Amino acid sequence: MREVAVLGIGQTKIDEHWGKSLRELAGEAALAAMMDAQVDHVESVYVGNMLSEVSNSQAHLGSMVADWIGQRYTDAVKIESACSSGGAAFRAGYLAVASGQVNVALVVGVEKMTDSPGDEITSGLATAADADWEVDQGLSFVALNALIMKRYLYEYGWKGVDFAEFSINAHANAVHNPYARFQSPINETIFLKSPMICDPINLMDASPIGDGAAAVVLVRGDMLPAGISKIVVAGSSAATDTIALHSRKVPLRLFAAEKSANEAYQQAGIRPEDIGVFEYHDAFTIMGALSLEACGFAEPGSAPSLAKEGQIKIDGRIPVATRGGLKARGHPVGATGMYQIVEVVQQLRGQAGETQVTRNEFGMTQNIGGSGSNIVTHILKRVN
Amino acid sequence: MREVAVLGIGQTKIDEHWGKSLRELAGEAALAAMMDAQVDHVESVYVGNMLSEVSNSQAHLGSMVADWIGQRYTDAVKIESACSSGGAAFRAGYLAVASGQVNVALVVGVEKMTDSPGDEITSGLATAADADWEVDQGLSFVALNALIMKRYLYEYGWKGVDFAEFSINAHANAVHNPYARFQSPINETIFLKSPMICDPINLMDASPIGDGAAAVVLVRGDMLPAGISKIVVAGSSAATDTIALHSRKVPLRLFAAEKSANEAYQQAGIRPEDIGVFEYHDAFTIMGALSLEACGFAEPGSAPSLAKEGQIKIDGRIPVATRGGLKARGHPVGATGMYQIVEVVQQLRGQAGETQVTRNEFGMTQNIGGSGSNIVTHILKRVN
Repeated sequence: MREVAVLGIGQTKIDEHWGKSLRELAGEAALAAMMDAQVDHVESVYVGNMLSEVSNSQAHLGSMVADWIGQRYTDAVKIESACSSGGAAFRAGYLAVASGQVNVALVVGVEKMTDSPGDEITSGLATAADADWEVDQGLSFVALNALIMKRYLYEYGWKGVDFAEFSINAHANAVHNPYARFQSPINETIFLKSPMICDPINLMDASPIGDGAAAVVLVRGDMLPAGISKIVVAGSSAATDTIALHSRKVPLRLFAAEKSANEAYQQAGIRPEDIGVFEYHDAFTIMGALSLEACGFAEPGSAPSLAKEGQIKIDGRIPVATRGGLKARGHPVGATGMYQIVEVVQQLRGQAGETQVTRNEFGMTQNIGGSGSNIVTHILKRVN
Repeated sequence: MREVAVLGIGQTKIDEHWGKSLRELAGEAALAAMMDAQVDHVESVYVGNMLSEVSNSQAHLGSMVADWIGQRYTDAVKIESACSSGGAAFRAGYLAVASGQVNVALVVGVEKMTDSPGDEITSGLATAADADWEVDQGLSFVALNALIMKRYLYEYGWKGVDFAEFSINAHANAVHNPYARFQSPINETIFLKSPMICDPINLMDASPIGDGAAAVVLVRGDMLPAGISKIVVAGSSAATDTIALHSRKVPLRLFAAEKSANEAYQQAGIRPEDIGVFEYHDAFTIMGALSLEACGFAEPGSAPSLAKEGQIKIDGRIPVATRGGLKARGHPVGATGMYQIVEVVQQLRGQAGETQVTRNEFGMTQNIGGSGSNIVTHILKRVN
């Protein structure tokens, strides 16, 4: 396999972008990434998106984006795996460049959710679950996560408040990220006073949707001048689990996270403790906790302790959500995986400002689709 | 790049499968392909599909299919590029195996369209066009193709009846394909009497939708025993054009078909005359004609002559729609590109029965998304 490097990054602020269309958001991030990479032509375009057919009446985003950013005639497709569509698109771009057929690829994750009424988005998000066996029973996506969290509290004896630190940490970091949807800190009082959405998940356990796009330019590592500092893909793996939650023998263990993380560690030749920054998928605090456990940063049932001890903060043992995470940076579903990649690149480049981590040789992203049904893990490495 | 071989194929009949769900259709084709390949495990699953979010309220087909066919924990995603989703999924699978990271991949194209009311499918198909600049003006997908055909008739002086042979040939071949939706021959009288859908496109110019799935197993070529006959991917290329028809300077020239075909010829080291079978994208007869011209089989404006001379028949210069094409085998949109691949493999293996072509070393597929906005071309080669 060829070495693949991330040469440029770009992103839009996550917001209610009522004045910008789907293509404008994608274009803004894509062109920023191409400008950053100093390339004016790409050979392939991979678009990560989940909901455009439903929320924007627009399929065919590969052609739409390539056309809009002046890359007409380029190879281009959309990749979808629910909320891990962004990570999956990055992986498709990585494999294309690694194959040797594509030299320069653009990957962009984009989602525009706030033009649609809330019930349409709730229905749209539910398409990530099993339509025949879960959604038909009335299960929404937050309800699935609430079932998991309820079981976690029961099994391990934690209370809802024990998850406050995940949310507080995310908001504290987002204060310093101009692209984050919420740049305001919260505290335990705010967490406790926030309304219950679906017991035991309260509003501060849940990430906000939003409109946004994030992009990178990928190139063959050997095309870069020798001796230059570069960010390379050291590990890329994805794994699925049952699409329906009820089919899992152990609902509190994210097997797909475990498998993809272990494969990524192996490819990179490292262990969990070598990771200096971890952009995890805190769509709900419970998912962040399970992800930390699956990736070897905490024993099963103990992630809340890790958070309470401050180990997930910027100067902790495993900094997470360093630019705000899904909770405070925001979760435009198909774009989220690409925000994670962009943020890890910022960290490895030393461009993360007030939330810069110190150990920045290896960074990891983990993007979760469905209730843990499709998980994409990447390890990026800075090579000097 | 590693050599990639197509080891197994599978397909369902295209029909109104009211008794089979989306996952059952995908599973039937996928398991048939795995049985044919004699593998019981795959490492990655690529699902080509366009409309499941809209017509089946189900996204996340990667996980759904992997789970259903007993390949839980496998890497799996959905690939979408409108009606070329099947071809694009095959290309993603090809690049993954060519990269060296994946040894065995399953690609399945699936679509289930007949459970939905017709207007919902018409709206769904329109998402392949530009939502902001075409669909908002009331253009449906057949209307876009009618505009192209009208211009073609005007520019080159043909009449609607001059396209009859494309349709007659497709139906003649489908008679011998048990998987085809329509296994009945037609003649010029039937063609002329068929109702007008959108002038100048009549019912016999247009392909039928349907429910169906087609699949292949891809493996590293060097994993196969030496000396054995095998089908390998000799060329793979995709290209886009403007998503909106009105943005094209020359609306009668499929630039994306030209570019992707030329790149595929170059990769395979062959010329158009070396192709013994061409599964083209006759969603409408006009698209079949433009595809033949773009790929070097006919001069611009002359494809109807090629058809009238009988050169597109099984024993002609360039046999097309040899198993019925989109017109008579059927067009379950996201699955179509995979039916094309499966059918070319049948031809190269010598398994095409009454419609077997004689020159079967090289076969080509061309899968078209949108009004020519995203075109995927593959050349398969039999290596003895």
